[in-house]
Formats: sequence, C-alpha cells, structure tokens
Amino acid sequence: MSDYPHNPSGYGYGQPPPSQMYSSAPYGGAPPSQMQSSAAYGGVPPSQPQSSAPYGGAPPPSQPYSNPFASLTPSVFPPGTDPNVISCFQMADQDGSGFIDDKELQKALSSYNQSFGLRSVHLLMYLFTNTNIRKIGPKEFTAVFSSLQNWRAIFERFDKDRSGKIDSSELREALHSLGYAVYGPVLELLVSKFDKTGGMNKAIEYDNFIECCLTVKGLTEKFKEKDTTYSGSATFTYDSFMLTVLPFLIA
Amino acid sequence: MSDYPHNPSGYGYGQPPPSQMYSSAPYGGAPPSQMQSSAAYGGVPPSQPQSSAPYGGAPPPSQPYSNPFASLTPSVFPPGTDPNVISCFQMADQDGSGFIDDKELQKALSSYNQSFGLRSVHLLMYLFTNTNIRKIGPKEFTAVFSSLQNWRAIFERFDKDRSGKIDSSELREALHSLGYAVYGPVLELLVSKFDKTGGMNKAIEYDNFIECCLTVKGLTEKFKEKDTTYSGSATFTYDSFMLTVLPFLIA
Repeated sequence: MSDYPHNPSGYGYGQPPPSQMYSSAPYGGAPPSQMQSSAAYGGVPPSQPQSSAPYGGAPPPSQPYSNPFASLTPSVFPPGTDPNVISCFQMADQDGSGFIDDKELQKALSSYNQSFGLRSVHLLMYLFTNTNIRKIGPKEFTAVFSSLQNWRAIFERFDKDRSGKIDSSELREALHSLGYAVYGPVLELLVSKFDKTGGMNKAIEYDNFIECCLTVKGLTEKFKEKDTTYSGSATFTYDSFMLTVLPFLIA
Repeated sequence: MSDYPHNPSGYGYGQPPPSQMYSSAPYGGAPPSQMQSSAAYGGVPPSQPQSSAPYGGAPPPSQPYSNPFASLTPSVFPPGTDPNVISCFQMADQDGSGFIDDKELQKALSSYNQSFGLRSVHLLMYLFTNTNIRKIGPKEFTAVFSSLQNWRAIFERFDKDRSGKIDSSELREALHSLGYAVYGPVLELLVSKFDKTGGMNKAIEYDNFIECCLTVKGLTEKFKEKDTTYSGSATFTYDSFMLTVLPFLIA
C-alpha cells in the first residue's frame, strides 16, 4: 500500500481494501501493477486524465471532455481510427450532417447491441460531450464506440453462464476491472437501482450494465473534477452540487 | 442582505439574488420576513430542521427523518392528525399490516392524484423514511399526505391557466414558495429533466412536478446534512458522494 500514504481512511476513488488490491490477477486483462495504478487515483499525475486509464485494451478516448464545444464544431476521427468505426459513423449519420443526433445514435446502438433506451443515449451523449446538446461528431463517436466495445467485452467475460445478466459480485469484479472499486453499500445500491426486476433478481442485464457503467464513470469523473488535490474528498457549493447531480437523474 | 454577511458568493441554499429576495410578497402565503428565513439557510439555528420550515401553511412533517428505523417499528399518528388522513391510511393499508407498502401507496396516491409511477413512490418512501425498506407507518404517511397536499396547492396556484402544466418561470416561483430558490442553470436542468416531452414543451406536468419537488427537497436536505457549518459548501468523500447521489437515480 505504499502508493497511498495520504489516504489513511481507506477511501479515495473506490480504492479496494488491501486484501482485494492484491487479488486483482484473476480479473484477467490488466496485470496487477496496472490495476493498481488505474484503481488508485493518487498515483496518477493530474495532467493525465484518469478517464482514459481504466479502459483495459481500448485506445484512449482522445479526451473528448477537453473542449466544451466539441459537439458544436465538427470534430475529426483520431489518427488511426479503425475503418469499421468510420463506416459505422457514416451509416449512423443518416442525414449526412457530419453529426449524429440522439435518435441516430439510438438506432445505431440498437443494431450493434441488443437494446438501448433513449434515456441511456442521452446520458451517454452528456458524458462524452459534457453538454446537453445531444449531438456527437466523429471523435466523440469513436470514444463512445471504444467504451461500449470494452464494456461489452467485460460484461461477456463476467457473464460466465451466458445468462444475459451478472450478479452483484460479478458486477463488483466487472467494475473493478474498469478501474472502479465500489464498496459494499454502493454496490448494493447499484444493483437495486439497475436491476430491471426492481431488486427481485439481484442481477443486472446488459443494457442496464451499460447504464450502470455510465453512471459510475460519470459520477466518479465529476467527483474527481472537484477533488482538485486528489485527497479523496471533494467540496461542492449548493449550486455546483445540484448541477453535478441533476444530469444523472433520468426522468 | 444583512442576514448573510458570511455568504459573499451569493450561493447558499438556493438563496435568490437580492432583487428577488424582496419581491417575495407576490408569492402569497408567507410574509416577506418568513420567506427570507426559509429561503436563506444561514439564519436558521442548527437545532431546527430546515425541512419543516419551508412548507408554507402545512403543519411541520413531524420530523420523520429523526429515526432511521421509523419504517421498521410501527409509528403512530401525530396528535391532532386530521381524521381524513387516518381514514385514508386505513383504506390504503389493504392487508391491515399497520404499514403501507409501495404498491399500496401507489394505489392510494393514484386515486388521490392523477397518476403516480412506482419510481416516484419509491423516491417518496426513501425521502420520508431515509431507508430503502419501502414501508411507511402512520406518522410517515401523515407527513407524505401533508407535503403532497401542499405541493398540489402550490402547483394549482402557479398553473394559472389550468393547462395542467407549469413553465420554467412558474416552476421557479413554485419552488421559491417552497423555500427552494434555484438559480437559472439549475432551473433549466430541472425543466429539461422533468419535462415529459424531453424538453419540447419546456413545461412540467403535475406528476413530474411532484418528482421535481421530491428531488429538490431530497438533494437539498442531503446537502445540508453534509454542510455541518452552514457555510453553503459541503464536503463529501467518494463513498459518501456515491451513497448520497445514487438513491436519486431512477433506473
């Protein structure tokens, strides 16, 4: 635990307890040393966006957050973008506007994945553009594509019996492999919120898993923005608290 | 503005700007001096729960938050409870258990009001019991009844043309008369989140207004719990942030 001398409380960004920290090998993909640097926030220099670190094998999402007007001005595909992604974008952009709106994205995702509600699409667009404009360009599309591909692979890895859903402990491992270690009560809340059966199954299906990943990723990033000293604590004014939280409410 | 010497930033619990502070008379009900003490947080002594202050003419909701096990042990009706409330409770408690569960509450509310989704019922129960147990006793039922009665009256007061919906500026006034003054960007977010048409109408119907009131009331109270020095700022650890926010997500 020499990486976390300033975090005696054991909190921080979902940092798992010591016993779990060293049992990260079975999660596959990332070697333990990488797991630690992605799970623990303190070790990452502030200039490097943490959001790109946890995505296992996926390419970094090109920092779509850096420009708040990214969805207003046309973006371009990052160098070396998979031609499949480019052709997906072109197919999804049905009106040829150079942007993909919420309905177009929903349609594109619903063919790629099983189902995708409009509210999930809105949360996705908000998190990858940091605006409520509900349009994304090539760059943001590439980041969305990459994250979803990664989340899908992780879901499939943990859905060992191919039941189409993962239970609470599998969810914990799945989130952990994404760099988010949530502690027991938070995990319970996530399962109760994202379980379609209202808590009967105590399990999450694929589309709700994506919503859950989006929520955990988004809330964690918003929290980090306020935790400027990387202390594991963040201070909000009332207005900033409301502005941070409300976009995650799905009405 | 002599009440707020320690709040130069103009933040605090949705405290309106000075020009608005003194235009509170038209909101009816509360005289300006009362409006100020309910809208501004700093002036309320810590021992008095702010939650009971803003409800205009409604009786204080008997502090249902004080006992975290309120929904485990049978509660009793507060002295002087309106007999109508008692008979409503008895009708709603269809299995005679002494508690009302989520389905029973939904049924009771859907006859009293137009419609009431199960997710709103769950948020309501969470906020009035501070647990996820989804059962309420007589005391909590009385508080729910009183709040809903008050919110309904306020909605009707601001829905001047009886269209069944209120627009953005009416929502701001309605929330203000409940003691919550939200600033422009937060108001915009609330309307975009709780407008059933996904932002087309820029207006909120009655059932979404209730959800909106529940959300603003609940988030404000959670924020206050962390703002122990009444400074207008609150500090959260990552875990406490997640535990605070997740219950408000409606999956």
